[in-house]
Amino acid sequence: MDGARAPAPAEALRAALAEAAGEIDQALDVLIPPPEGPEGRLFEAMRYAAIGGGKRLRGFLVLEGARQFGVAREAALRTAAAIEMLHAYSLVHDDLPCMDDDDLRRGKPTLHKAFDEATAVLAGDALQAHAFHVLAEPDTHPDPAVRAELCRCLARAAGPRGMCAGQMLDMLAEAAAEPLEEAEIGRLQLLKTGKLIEFAAEAGAILGKAPGPLRLALAAYGRDLGAAFQIADDLLDATASAEETGKRTGKDAAAGKATLVGLLGIARARAHAERLAAQAAGHLDALGERADLLRALAAYAIARRS
Amino acid sequence: MDGARAPAPAEALRAALAEAAGEIDQALDVLIPPPEGPEGRLFEAMRYAAIGGGKRLRGFLVLEGARQFGVAREAALRTAAAIEMLHAYSLVHDDLPCMDDDDLRRGKPTLHKAFDEATAVLAGDALQAHAFHVLAEPDTHPDPAVRAELCRCLARAAGPRGMCAGQMLDMLAEAAAEPLEEAEIGRLQLLKTGKLIEFAAEAGAILGKAPGPLRLALAAYGRDLGAAFQIADDLLDATASAEETGKRTGKDAAAGKATLVGLLGIARARAHAERLAAQAAGHLDALGERADLLRALAAYAIARRS
Repeated sequence: MDGARAPAPAEALRAALAEAAGEIDQALDVLIPPPEGPEGRLFEAMRYAAIGGGKRLRGFLVLEGARQFGVAREAALRTAAAIEMLHAYSLVHDDLPCMDDDDLRRGKPTLHKAFDEATAVLAGDALQAHAFHVLAEPDTHPDPAVRAELCRCLARAAGPRGMCAGQMLDMLAEAAAEPLEEAEIGRLQLLKTGKLIEFAAEAGAILGKAPGPLRLALAAYGRDLGAAFQIADDLLDATASAEETGKRTGKDAAAGKATLVGLLGIARARAHAERLAAQAAGHLDALGERADLLRALAAYAIARRS
Repeated sequence: MDGARAPAPAEALRAALAEAAGEIDQALDVLIPPPEGPEGRLFEAMRYAAIGGGKRLRGFLVLEGARQFGVAREAALRTAAAIEMLHAYSLVHDDLPCMDDDDLRRGKPTLHKAFDEATAVLAGDALQAHAFHVLAEPDTHPDPAVRAELCRCLARAAGPRGMCAGQMLDMLAEAAAEPLEEAEIGRLQLLKTGKLIEFAAEAGAILGKAPGPLRLALAAYGRDLGAAFQIADDLLDATASAEETGKRTGKDAAAGKATLVGLLGIARARAHAERLAAQAAGHLDALGERADLLRALAAYAIARRS
């Protein structure tokens, strides 16, 4: 089977990413059905935030991780969609006027601009709850221990010792007089974006009841990959245009945001991201050729233009 | 055992409610530890919102439901605390300037007043995630099927087909030109507050692996109790003072909110609440004397002054 994979890694990755994004959108379209009834506006807002656009990095990680262990695509897609819902909620709340006050996201107006602020708060809240609902439903996996573990790990990644802690640190850093040091920026980003990416990479192993060491390897891959992606994002913010990225750029420097690019400069930050990407790929050694797309993703993380 | 319960129901209930509130606060104090580290402000805000104050109606329902089936108090307390976290998050977000814009809650400044708006959004988000984390952790119940079921039911009660849908309906009703009809108000309140109270009443049965009919009976009790409580709340808003209730009163009428009290008038609304409370108690017939406190709670729901 593996011998038949002819395309060069980058090309194969591009095709696989596009295919996964399409499948994840289809799954989200089913899991967040079109508006109906008097509260339909809530579903409309959730769909606006969650469906279409985005690289689907997290969802792709779930699907590729699950493929390593022969997990049924349908089951993996539900988990991928749940993590993308959680991610979408975090973007909606981050964009709020009281947070980053952003007008543009994934090339279109942010949710509170397209709808209103109260609906944005509420749709974000509903997306978070719905992510847990999808994971906890029997359709996601026949073994309740797997479902409970998925819920536990998502909650840990998203909660006050994960993403929310990172967001708090980010808010405090913006208000602080002193700039953050390198280690502090690293911790902020590990919490704010790294933990969820780590869980996305680990989720396939949970679904596949993978041996402990392989689950740990995928989690470590996700952690390093997430850090590399974050630096690459900050590099893009510093060097690319809004047209290329689909969101406002140059805003980190304008807001005085603490990023490794701001602290180390572009060249050293890029070198650091390259080291992280290589390290991420290194964790995949035990997985053999089946993990080639995940290796290609580590290379793509630092090479992309959007 | 039951023969030894001497106090009159109302007195016994008051003592049991106070005891449960104390235990739930202790559990929350452990589950949301005091601030530590640079992101400590997040934990400080979560504790501000979740610990102290509140009747702990939902937590009490979990504990009393669990007691029917001999569930260990420790396990039930974790579930009670998780539901109270979820409830606390919903109050924090409801109070936001873009939502109800309230300054007072449980007798003290609302979270966005005491901290700031961004911290209020974030602490609410973190409380929601943390509620699922607590339920999904092995300490809550040794059987993962129970933990997954708790997560599934909490997510359903809190998500876009539960509490969030109710909040959406509430927002739409305030913006609408036409007042809601009785059935629409009933559905709004079932979604906005009823579903979570229903789950709280059902959670003890889930923890205790109760037979299906008893689980359904407790859920039905919670549904009717929640509806009675909601009307009683609206009656208090219309008739009591802020000093008695610890929150701003008269605000429903001022905001033109759709309530049954506004639609039916005080006397008919009170009669309706009494019917609901009696109906709630009726669901408990199969549970015998052990459910006396739950019966007393139904009576208290409509008799209380705060």
